Amino acid sequence: MNLNFASDNAGPVHPAIMQALADANAGGTMPYGNDDATAALRDRFRTLLAWPEAEIALVATGTAANAIALAALVKPYDAILCHQAAHIQDDEAGAPEFYTGGAKLVPVPGPHGRIDPDALRAACARIGTSVHAVQRGALSLTDVTEAGTLYTPDQLDALTAIARDYGMATHLDGARFANACAALDCTAADLARGFDVVSFGGTKNGCMGVEAIVLRDPAGHWDVQMRRKRAGHLWSKHRYLAAQMTAYLADDLWLDLGGRANAAAGRLAEGLARAGAEVVHPPQANMIFARLDPAAHDRAKAAGAAYYVMDDAPRPLCRLVCDWSKTDAEVDALLRALAG
Amino acid sequence: MNLNFASDNAGPVHPAIMQALADANAGGTMPYGNDDATAALRDRFRTLLAWPEAEIALVATGTAANAIALAALVKPYDAILCHQAAHIQDDEAGAPEFYTGGAKLVPVPGPHGRIDPDALRAACARIGTSVHAVQRGALSLTDVTEAGTLYTPDQLDALTAIARDYGMATHLDGARFANACAALDCTAADLARGFDVVSFGGTKNGCMGVEAIVLRDPAGHWDVQMRRKRAGHLWSKHRYLAAQMTAYLADDLWLDLGGRANAAAGRLAEGLARAGAEVVHPPQANMIFARLDPAAHDRAKAAGAAYYVMDDAPRPLCRLVCDWSKTDAEVDALLRALAG
Amino acid sequence: MNLNFASDNAGPVHPAIMQALADANAGGTMPYGNDDATAALRDRFRTLLAWPEAEIALVATGTAANAIALAALVKPYDAILCHQAAHIQDDEAGAPEFYTGGAKLVPVPGPHGRIDPDALRAACARIGTSVHAVQRGALSLTDVTEAGTLYTPDQLDALTAIARDYGMATHLDGARFANACAALDCTAADLARGFDVVSFGGTKNGCMGVEAIVLRDPAGHWDVQMRRKRAGHLWSKHRYLAAQMTAYLADDLWLDLGGRANAAAGRLAEGLARAGAEVVHPPQANMIFARLDPAAHDRAKAAGAAYYVMDDAPRPLCRLVCDWSKTDAEVDALLRALAG
Amino acid sequence: MNLNFASDNAGPVHPAIMQALADANAGGTMPYGNDDATAALRDRFRTLLAWPEAEIALVATGTAANAIALAALVKPYDAILCHQAAHIQDDEAGAPEFYTGGAKLVPVPGPHGRIDPDALRAACARIGTSVHAVQRGALSLTDVTEAGTLYTPDQLDALTAIARDYGMATHLDGARFANACAALDCTAADLARGFDVVSFGGTKNGCMGVEAIVLRDPAGHWDVQMRRKRAGHLWSKHRYLAAQMTAYLADDLWLDLGGRANAAAGRLAEGLARAGAEVVHPPQANMIFARLDPAAHDRAKAAGAAYYVMDDAPRPLCRLVCDWSKTDAEVDALLRALAG
Repeated sequence: MNLNFASDNAGPVHPAIMQALADANAGGTMPYGNDDATAALRDRFRTLLAWPEAEIALVATGTAANAIALAALVKPYDAILCHQAAHIQDDEAGAPEFYTGGAKLVPVPGPHGRIDPDALRAACARIGTSVHAVQRGALSLTDVTEAGTLYTPDQLDALTAIARDYGMATHLDGARFANACAALDCTAADLARGFDVVSFGGTKNGCMGVEAIVLRDPAGHWDVQMRRKRAGHLWSKHRYLAAQMTAYLADDLWLDLGGRANAAAGRLAEGLARAGAEVVHPPQANMIFARLDPAAHDRAKAAGAAYYVMDDAPRPLCRLVCDWSKTDAEVDALLRALAG
Repeated sequence: MNLNFASDNAGPVHPAIMQALADANAGGTMPYGNDDATAALRDRFRTLLAWPEAEIALVATGTAANAIALAALVKPYDAILCHQAAHIQDDEAGAPEFYTGGAKLVPVPGPHGRIDPDALRAACARIGTSVHAVQRGALSLTDVTEAGTLYTPDQLDALTAIARDYGMATHLDGARFANACAALDCTAADLARGFDVVSFGGTKNGCMGVEAIVLRDPAGHWDVQMRRKRAGHLWSKHRYLAAQMTAYLADDLWLDLGGRANAAAGRLAEGLARAGAEVVHPPQANMIFARLDPAAHDRAKAAGAAYYVMDDAPRPLCRLVCDWSKTDAEVDALLRALAG
Repeated sequence: MNLNFASDNAGPVHPAIMQALADANAGGTMPYGNDDATAALRDRFRTLLAWPEAEIALVATGTAANAIALAALVKPYDAILCHQAAHIQDDEAGAPEFYTGGAKLVPVPGPHGRIDPDALRAACARIGTSVHAVQRGALSLTDVTEAGTLYTPDQLDALTAIARDYGMATHLDGARFANACAALDCTAADLARGFDVVSFGGTKNGCMGVEAIVLRDPAGHWDVQMRRKRAGHLWSKHRYLAAQMTAYLADDLWLDLGGRANAAAGRLAEGLARAGAEVVHPPQANMIFARLDPAAHDRAKAAGAAYYVMDDAPRPLCRLVCDWSKTDAEVDALLRALAG
Repeated sequence: MNLNFASDNAGPVHPAIMQALADANAGGTMPYGNDDATAALRDRFRTLLAWPEAEIALVATGTAANAIALAALVKPYDAILCHQAAHIQDDEAGAPEFYTGGAKLVPVPGPHGRIDPDALRAACARIGTSVHAVQRGALSLTDVTEAGTLYTPDQLDALTAIARDYGMATHLDGARFANACAALDCTAADLARGFDVVSFGGTKNGCMGVEAIVLRDPAGHWDVQMRRKRAGHLWSKHRYLAAQMTAYLADDLWLDLGGRANAAAGRLAEGLARAGAEVVHPPQANMIFARLDPAAHDRAKAAGAAYYVMDDAPRPLCRLVCDWSKTDAEVDALLRALAG
């Protein structure tokens, strides 16, 4: 029984996507994305996000998608506002700083992984417009948040409106875009509606490695293409990126897989709550943050379970993630292991 | 009949490598390269290059491999010497400049894609050591060269010795490492022996997208890992990179595929020469540069052939590339199309 | 009566330094710092800081001094820890990020402009050593702090010891080095003793524009020289930088001027306290932060006084700075203007 | 007798400029260029260059002026075309690469320091528009050239027109703008007419250290200001930069000094020619490049003469530069020393 709840990345590639890779291998295609499949994908995203002029660029990792997107939005002397626990702030080893030429990430607080609107307004005001400090560049939001919680489309609107009031561009880190849409029961267009650029993730949700940078305004497309190439993220055998994303979007596979992951996590959260674990963030998508009884933790480890332990408190804070492949049986097995 | 001779990248992924990807999909593995397969790969490279302490980092593209390798070797105020037609100089959109923080590529001339030793010595001397100019950083050589020719190991030795005399580090762009070894009938260790870092290519020779940065001196490993992560080139599902490279190295598949590509190109070169085409660089590996009769060129295009045309001379200079999958029948079909 | 208390920069150049510039104009000197005066200055700093092998580099601005110093200490993927109100964090428009190639400034809290040791320890621990996050690079402290307070040498020792425990380099932003030494009644060597590199300021204390980057370990000297040149901060007519610094250090002029500025600020602080202003940071050097009665504030403005207003509270927070040239009469005139 | 002909930088500051510095010391002024003198300077440049909306930024060095100007004109993935011996290519240690975030300098050949128009056209065409290579960014010309020769305004027009045809911005490195205008007997507006941005030099021609970045289009002004600040080139005591430039422009002092330097160099060139030295570039401004008889060279050195020796040929190539202060007596003394 697979008890690996460490990451969305621990799961397998979905069979439909493996098949798409095999199919892409059959025919020759022009390299570097100059192919019909990539053009069709762009049209698919135009429909999906209701952005009639959208342009896209595919890359293999979420960090690349975020960093290239941000580099296209800000100047090297700009600030990028994000939640204090955002992936771009904590988990990308300075990729945004590298790609932007040294922009400054300004962390903004807020409970449960969500930026507090008042704190955002205060941060925008504080940045100001003096030549002595970094300028107002972009706001980057993450939905599903790093705390496993959600912003509703209305909550996103409230924050992106503040950014626009201060003349800033807006970016959505959608590494878990599918999980958010599935959990919110909203359309992709609703989730994206307040943003200039979206990082639309596939890797965490059944793909091998593919993310789409989606630009609402096509004016920035060439800049993004040049930055992707210059970073070594333009695949010569681009058809293998396009094939993944095409299969992922076909028949709403993305949404289906996101929903499956959320359902497994919901089952896990209920079980943990029943067992008396302290769930520290509202479990709204596919990640659970809970303080586990140390004895339960030891039993789970002994049974081969894997998940991240985020502090060394007596009741350690643990992150448990369900990817699309997690079965009820696996969730129940973990709960049994914890229960002893 | 597939008449696409545009690029090594136009070919399919070798079945053994597709199978390895499918196999990797079966089991869960820890993300980010912290797995046994990656450790085994490192050991394989230690043996292959006879570098007992070598460390490796896998990335998905050749541009990333080159740029990260060079960033680990030089300071932002250093010069990187390379052939005036090198891939890093002409075809990576400034990736080395981006990754190094602005190092200066200094092109060095030489016939048929090979740096002339005297020109290298002159360039090293000219760079000098004044605070007013960029400093002597690294020499980057490419074998197979961009002209489809070869450096022998002795020729490489002569150039890397000059670099060392001037205190510079050495890098081999081995995007076609396999083609070079196969054509030279030398060992991988012979090809690598003069270098500090090798970009060992897989993508152009039957992989989907994987290159190994191989460091002779393990002291630079952490720096390379940080630069890879920060550039978004550390795959979360790293097992799919490792699986490709493992299969590629198994049973000398790499060498076999390189040899196949070379053989097809040899057959093509002979046919072109018989037909009176002017072959402008000695055809030594899997790329042919020839001036074609315009009528022949038109016939080939009409038959669906694809290859790069590099100028607009009356007899245009054409680049024809054979990848590992090219068959005698395909080569002969192209020759027939050209012959009319 | 000059009622400009806006900045140390508002004051004039000290006559001895103007004279030194005039004297430097008399003779020809080799450009770019290859001169006897610069060599003598280096020896002067070796004695002053009791760093027997120190090397120096002169630049014209404090931001350049700090940014070049930090770039020489950290990798692009490193963290630089500093107080949350540090000049490098708030007032240099991202210069450290630019010069380092994108290092991340990590703000650390603490009352009255001083980093709290426990907060520093926590920040160091949190940065950790994972490949996914920026690494432990350097600690940068500022004395006099941006709040106008002081670290004693012992307090500096406590913080730099923590940095060393975590393998980090140490930098002192000494834009007001002279004010700190004068106020602490300590030697320059005492102030510098825990640091690898010091930015030794002159501009704020009677020079026209000169700062010294002083390196304890000469191994980094060439790197600093290259970074200075490449940033356009190597003066061709370097003798005019050297002349300023030489005059500034002669006969302890630096210390005398720092003491004068502190004394004026002390007189001002006492007067403000007597008048019932709320002084929000202990006034220890040449800067006073006080909440002024709005009527007093209006009167002062009407009288032509200049100082920074840092918020829009009913009783606004005001920063009043005394440079070396401030006289008792000027201080008293400001106090009278405020008193009405 | 001062026989230092090493550089324009070896000369003294002109007395009128020293006086302006002393005058600037008398009154307090707002820091950072927010002062009347800087506003007046901007208006002066608008008239001088006949650019009615021009904006300016002052810095202390020519390398800073060039690098900031170029960073405002190009993207990090652009090419900057310049003469193969340009200062930005050979003598700034990679400053343009640093400031632009890694743009690539593309050297273009041409005799006597001047770009050949056909070579420029070929270089522009070769750069092309593929995503795989750096893009067409800017053309940077230098007048007086690094070979001491001149472009006429018409010759500049021919080159800048080519740049515009290819969609590129244009930059004039005017480190010796005054010498060029004086020698060409043209207006400043004539020299600048084809350019988007001019680096207008003062340092080499009697100032202590000041250059103006002059932008034809005010839209780029804020970007330049941010880049200047972020590079540590915004002087807090900005009045000392403004005072220099104001005095330099007053009563056409700049033009007078440039003419003096040219006249001295003309006298020197005639003397050298009479003495049989091989003058290798047409001496048109204030720099002479000549191959000297080794015995003459030895005699001059023995007499204390200083100038750069640029190769180690039997008759070494020497660069002799006259600054504004060179007298006929000094020139004649050098000629006598060489004659023996």
